[in-house]
Amino acid sequence: MTPAELRRLSAAGQFERPTAGFCDGYVQANLVALPERWAGDFEAFCRRNPKPCPLLEIVGPGTTRTRRLAPGADLLHVVPRYRVWVDGALREEVPDIARVYRPDLVFFLLGCSFSFEEALLRAGIRLRHIEEQKNVSMYRTTIPLEPVGPFRGGMVVSMRPIHRTQVARACIITARYPEVHGEPVHIGYPEMIGIRDLARPDYGDPVEIRAEEIPVFWACGVTPQNVLLEAKLPFAVTHAPGYMFVSDLKNEDFARQEVSP
Amino acid sequence: MTPAELRRLSAAGQFERPTAGFCDGYVQANLVALPERWAGDFEAFCRRNPKPCPLLEIVGPGTTRTRRLAPGADLLHVVPRYRVWVDGALREEVPDIARVYRPDLVFFLLGCSFSFEEALLRAGIRLRHIEEQKNVSMYRTTIPLEPVGPFRGGMVVSMRPIHRTQVARACIITARYPEVHGEPVHIGYPEMIGIRDLARPDYGDPVEIRAEEIPVFWACGVTPQNVLLEAKLPFAVTHAPGYMFVSDLKNEDFARQEVSP
Repeated sequence: MTPAELRRLSAAGQFERPTAGFCDGYVQANLVALPERWAGDFEAFCRRNPKPCPLLEIVGPGTTRTRRLAPGADLLHVVPRYRVWVDGALREEVPDIARVYRPDLVFFLLGCSFSFEEALLRAGIRLRHIEEQKNVSMYRTTIPLEPVGPFRGGMVVSMRPIHRTQVARACIITARYPEVHGEPVHIGYPEMIGIRDLARPDYGDPVEIRAEEIPVFWACGVTPQNVLLEAKLPFAVTHAPGYMFVSDLKNEDFARQEVSP
Repeated sequence: MTPAELRRLSAAGQFERPTAGFCDGYVQANLVALPERWAGDFEAFCRRNPKPCPLLEIVGPGTTRTRRLAPGADLLHVVPRYRVWVDGALREEVPDIARVYRPDLVFFLLGCSFSFEEALLRAGIRLRHIEEQKNVSMYRTTIPLEPVGPFRGGMVVSMRPIHRTQVARACIITARYPEVHGEPVHIGYPEMIGIRDLARPDYGDPVEIRAEEIPVFWACGVTPQNVLLEAKLPFAVTHAPGYMFVSDLKNEDFARQEVSP
């Protein structure tokens, strides 16, 4: 299935499932939409915190169609499932947001670690959550974010156990993808960043960590959603976790030249 | 002082001191010299274990003059201090090896971490052993080496405490220098590689490790000397620790393009 086909099926109400594993090689993105009144602060927040909030494209106000990631795709329909938030609380999950659209909405598309995971796998680095068919483990941390307006808090990180002989390589590989979180923000020693128990993630699922493995932490695209919800805006829309926007760009379009073979 | 001047003074017996801090920006190298009978095994050993034993140049038998690192420099004279080993025991330290030279000697020049330290400092990463004016901490480990002939054993690593926010960056920067040990071989958790007590290094000096810092381990150029001595060859020559061969090549000649700014 091509990204255009997936988006067309999604817009027709015929594809409403998590997008992981579809359209291999294509960039998938996180979606955050909020009224123009908050959009400037949110954009500035993302730009000051680019590792957890890597901005790929901003759409609107006044239009709902992407230009960079998938020219012409209509963000009211092409994400398989949306979440609608009112006063910081989840109001509903829906396959289409035409009904709740308001013309002052600004859409933010943000990078996602699916992109660098493909590169890690290609380099022979195993990813436990994929092998265990789970969602990646995610944790709230004490790593401070630069606050802007109502947007503030700690970074959310994803954790992948990496064999000790491959940790440096995982840094080098993911550093090639600065627009999709880049290199790790922390390596080992979870307590240093305020994580008490790796077996109890704040989002996603716990995974096994073996004797020769080190927990490696990357900035996570759940950060902006977490911050958004804590800001308790009167109205906002996001994608539902795992139901991503699938773009026409290739992950490799986002890769910088590799540092060594 | 240029490298040529340092080598000339050294050959004239007027420079007999550690070379750290001299000829900034130029590659300094470890020296190992041994009879041709063992040279093939040693070369194969280095090539199978390139991270701790990065071969920069091989000279001889039959000549003592370098071609790549400093065209024409005579390895019998230009290192400020040599060690002569007989049956695996230190026989003497001398400023010149013309007297002990034998025509079957083969000289190996091996990369040294001085080169990547310059790049780390330039990136704003502090190096505690330099700030404390000490020798870097080095440890024998259980990281296995690929054995060849009489050459075998565990890798020796150097350790630098790095602030947790700079560990991934330190990996990326040092990965640019694959000919001078490259990226770390291990990060954090010293016990995983058989190090019992960071405060008691096997070579060099202990340094302070602060609360927000993580011990990061690089393959170390002491490895080949360690292996050589344990092989108890009838005859061998090395540089004296810290008294390096100073070449005409720049560290940046060994850098690959950086992965990110």
